[in-house]
Amino acid sequence: MNLQAVFNIAEICAQYGVQQVVLSPGSRCAPLTLAFVRHPKIQVRTISDERAAAFIGLGIALTTRRPVVLVCTSGTAALNYAPAVAEAFYQQVPLLVITADRPAEWIDQLDGQTIRQENIYGRHIKKSFSFPSEGEYPDAIWYGQRLVSEALLESEAYPPGPVHLNVPLREPFYPKPEEPIHFQKNVKVIRELPIDYDLSSSHINLLKFASAGYQKILVVAGQGPYEEELTQILQAFARNTGAVIVADVISNLHEIPGVCRYQDTYLSGKNTAIAPDVQPDLLITFGLSNISKNLKLFLRAFPPRAHWHLQPAGTVADPFQSLTQIIRTTPISFFNALGSTHYRTERNYQQVWQQEEKKAKKYLTDFLSGPAYNEFTAYYQVLKHLPQLVNLHLANSMSVRYANIIGLKPRQQVTVFANRGTSGIDGCTSTTVGSALSSPNLTVLITGDLAFFYDRNGLWHNYLPANLRIVLLNNQAGGIFRLIDGPRQQPELAEFFETYQYLNAEQTAKDFKMAYFPCHSLPDLTKNLLLFWQAGPGILEIFTSSPENAAFFDRFKRESPFKAT
Amino acid sequence: MNLQAVFNIAEICAQYGVQQVVLSPGSRCAPLTLAFVRHPKIQVRTISDERAAAFIGLGIALTTRRPVVLVCTSGTAALNYAPAVAEAFYQQVPLLVITADRPAEWIDQLDGQTIRQENIYGRHIKKSFSFPSEGEYPDAIWYGQRLVSEALLESEAYPPGPVHLNVPLREPFYPKPEEPIHFQKNVKVIRELPIDYDLSSSHINLLKFASAGYQKILVVAGQGPYEEELTQILQAFARNTGAVIVADVISNLHEIPGVCRYQDTYLSGKNTAIAPDVQPDLLITFGLSNISKNLKLFLRAFPPRAHWHLQPAGTVADPFQSLTQIIRTTPISFFNALGSTHYRTERNYQQVWQQEEKKAKKYLTDFLSGPAYNEFTAYYQVLKHLPQLVNLHLANSMSVRYANIIGLKPRQQVTVFANRGTSGIDGCTSTTVGSALSSPNLTVLITGDLAFFYDRNGLWHNYLPANLRIVLLNNQAGGIFRLIDGPRQQPELAEFFETYQYLNAEQTAKDFKMAYFPCHSLPDLTKNLLLFWQAGPGILEIFTSSPENAAFFDRFKRESPFKAT
Repeated sequence: MNLQAVFNIAEICAQYGVQQVVLSPGSRCAPLTLAFVRHPKIQVRTISDERAAAFIGLGIALTTRRPVVLVCTSGTAALNYAPAVAEAFYQQVPLLVITADRPAEWIDQLDGQTIRQENIYGRHIKKSFSFPSEGEYPDAIWYGQRLVSEALLESEAYPPGPVHLNVPLREPFYPKPEEPIHFQKNVKVIRELPIDYDLSSSHINLLKFASAGYQKILVVAGQGPYEEELTQILQAFARNTGAVIVADVISNLHEIPGVCRYQDTYLSGKNTAIAPDVQPDLLITFGLSNISKNLKLFLRAFPPRAHWHLQPAGTVADPFQSLTQIIRTTPISFFNALGSTHYRTERNYQQVWQQEEKKAKKYLTDFLSGPAYNEFTAYYQVLKHLPQLVNLHLANSMSVRYANIIGLKPRQQVTVFANRGTSGIDGCTSTTVGSALSSPNLTVLITGDLAFFYDRNGLWHNYLPANLRIVLLNNQAGGIFRLIDGPRQQPELAEFFETYQYLNAEQTAKDFKMAYFPCHSLPDLTKNLLLFWQAGPGILEIFTSSPENAAFFDRFKRESPFKAT
Repeated sequence: MNLQAVFNIAEICAQYGVQQVVLSPGSRCAPLTLAFVRHPKIQVRTISDERAAAFIGLGIALTTRRPVVLVCTSGTAALNYAPAVAEAFYQQVPLLVITADRPAEWIDQLDGQTIRQENIYGRHIKKSFSFPSEGEYPDAIWYGQRLVSEALLESEAYPPGPVHLNVPLREPFYPKPEEPIHFQKNVKVIRELPIDYDLSSSHINLLKFASAGYQKILVVAGQGPYEEELTQILQAFARNTGAVIVADVISNLHEIPGVCRYQDTYLSGKNTAIAPDVQPDLLITFGLSNISKNLKLFLRAFPPRAHWHLQPAGTVADPFQSLTQIIRTTPISFFNALGSTHYRTERNYQQVWQQEEKKAKKYLTDFLSGPAYNEFTAYYQVLKHLPQLVNLHLANSMSVRYANIIGLKPRQQVTVFANRGTSGIDGCTSTTVGSALSSPNLTVLITGDLAFFYDRNGLWHNYLPANLRIVLLNNQAGGIFRLIDGPRQQPELAEFFETYQYLNAEQTAKDFKMAYFPCHSLPDLTKNLLLFWQAGPGILEIFTSSPENAAFFDRFKRESPFKAT
């Protein structure tokens, strides 16, 4: 093996602009470790559990919006990356996944930590490359260097995502003692002028003409990062066109004052009373997934006449089952181009939605401000008292659902993250840790007990971020199963659906030297919250009873003024 | 969806003989959960972390030597199984991996917990099946039932291994309240009369004739389960033929009195002094991997004239690079057939090896019985004081290596387990837990701190086995990197190779309600060991210093009477 070829991988990554590497220790990956650790322009962190390491890398990439490099050794290390790789694939996050490997001759020869690593991420990876192991031939050198550029470019080309570079390595893995590593500045780096996906003027005219035929325009945003420019453009578009914008909490559009944020409470597939008024003629969607099941059921039951989806490239999903037109552009380009003209839309359309919003907000506020103590009211208090300028991570299962029901206020200056690519509970803590490591802002995770203990290893390393806060809703179970019809009618509910678990985070906080704030009542919570935000890295654990949570949530649905008619 | 088709999966498994199911909670997998939980002949345990769940299933299958069924929900749950599936593939352990899935129409539609699950285990699975989602057609019913039998048979056909059954499910997932589940007794179950791989009489004659041409026969056993019959047959074979048997600790042949067990200490690729005497003419191998790197290096440097490998079916590895003849039979059949004849072998050959064994044993005993306290001497004490009738699990990295150097005595009645299929540290605790759950014997894991905390979730469930004992060698690092040349000469040793970690198991023991015995000296250890074996489930934590361990191990190699000449 030519070690220089491996050192050059780090140099190419650095020249390309990679700044953050997450590696997991190993023997086979030693040349990669040395190359990245010694590179002056790259920051490397080492995380022992590869499952957590990959999600931490994902969190860094989500927050910095730049590709992050992961490095692991051979064998099942690479498989432990798989959950985060799938999440990155569906959430469209750029990762360069570098796995050290045995050379081909030692595969399936009963050697330790040796599996079949080529294409190991199957169909959850944008592209997979094998680094040449014959580093001494000039063409192989050119080939290896070209692959690294190609992999990095591919990770960022729309839609961004994970790319795999498998690197077979032969011994020796280490330079001689005192032998310095050289980074060759003249490595080959290929750059790309990316497509901007702007609409042409003829397409703009066409779309303006087509959209003029609709009276009620509804914009539904799926998951997306916070973008100041998009927020402003959408606001202008709504003002000029009379369109209604519905935004789940993960769409990061809560800064727009008039955006609809309580749709989870008033929409449903059976709410026929308001249906004729809120049903759109034209539905315009963009972004990734939606949380609100009620929104999905409503739009499937009361479909628009036309449904346009904005997506620069890639396979298009049809979650509302109403898609009629795919438009290959960015939301910024589209709403910029179409927002300047005044439509003759039904001006009343926005008011109809705003009435429902107002009613829902009042119902929520009244219902959740009372003295009852349970995870729903506690969650409401946490969001209400959230500081400004926060990265807010929502774990999967009920954590993200409660947030979507409660909603964020305009100008709360919160950026929302959630692993809704695959909606797994497996890496929520690690992703938050990665985010905290790469942002100066307070970084808050709201999570349940199952998600928290599942991913406890996200805290097992030497980089505990001072800005990390974990709000843990501990109902000692997967409480979601008690909230939904089906499992809660089964005698197996507690043991096999909720899966009772008895841990609390006290020992975990001790283990990881985090401040710990247990809460057993609303006054506990109010008192602790202030301390918690101001303390160093900490865990605020809110203990509630799963049956009480379920009874309260039932009442919330039962007493809703928006009951299906 | 026809729920009956799903319930029948459980019935077919039960009729086939499956008794143990490990499931992880989820919504999409609810019909599978109900089917297995309610089946009167099947025991189901629920484990929330799918990575741990799969290794627990592996541990049960390793111990019961019967296929175990895993059940998980859709999405990354299935990917968290991947490390254990790869281990089962390479260690040849029968698992039926059942993953619930969305039906085809909802793949890539931004639905939660939906990924591309078909063939998700790539090349680390024996076979992958898709259960039909049109359960109401007669041919589909036949097809579905046939697939379950085929999957179970495939998991056990030589070489055994994991098989994947992906089950797309449509709502409703639950029978109506009070509606009972029926298990149809007349489901279709296909059985198979497996090949016995016995040698034919003509092959026996051929092999007898061929083997008569060799004077020095060396048998090297790779990893394998403990088999009383094989132990006796091999003993007779050695007695009758003068062959030498070398057995790493994971081959489970330590009950044979004359077996060579200290080869790690006296063999090396450079030990030219004894090479002419110990080099074999004919090498006979069977089983899976070997631990001893010295044995590998020795046999590669001093190859036999012929190398026969016994393996009933499947791809054959050549780890000693000396393979000349593959024989498609079982070790029991082979050694039975060839052990009855008396060979004119060099009788001195066994004595030469026995002299080295004796010398090595003395060196080891003298060296390790002293007052020095470090992980090597502590390990020696643990093995010396191991009770009878124990399942001994050896975690990867140094734990399994120390055991192989120290060796087990004949008639110690210990069955050794180690995840040497892929040699990962990721599931050692979980595998042990699975083993403890399915055996009445004391079940002991010897592990390092990195392996232990990596797989802490192996203890996170409601089934803590009373017979579980964990010996934790805590040197606060991946100490192996300080023992081997290369990393220990690098300035990055502590941070990026050893990966300093500060946890100890005190809080973990509290969390999981296990007895806890910290040890800081040899007297601590001696005193605690007795209590530890007799207490309920517990953790014995042996604190040592990584630099001191390395210095002692260096001395062990430096002062060895078998130094390379």
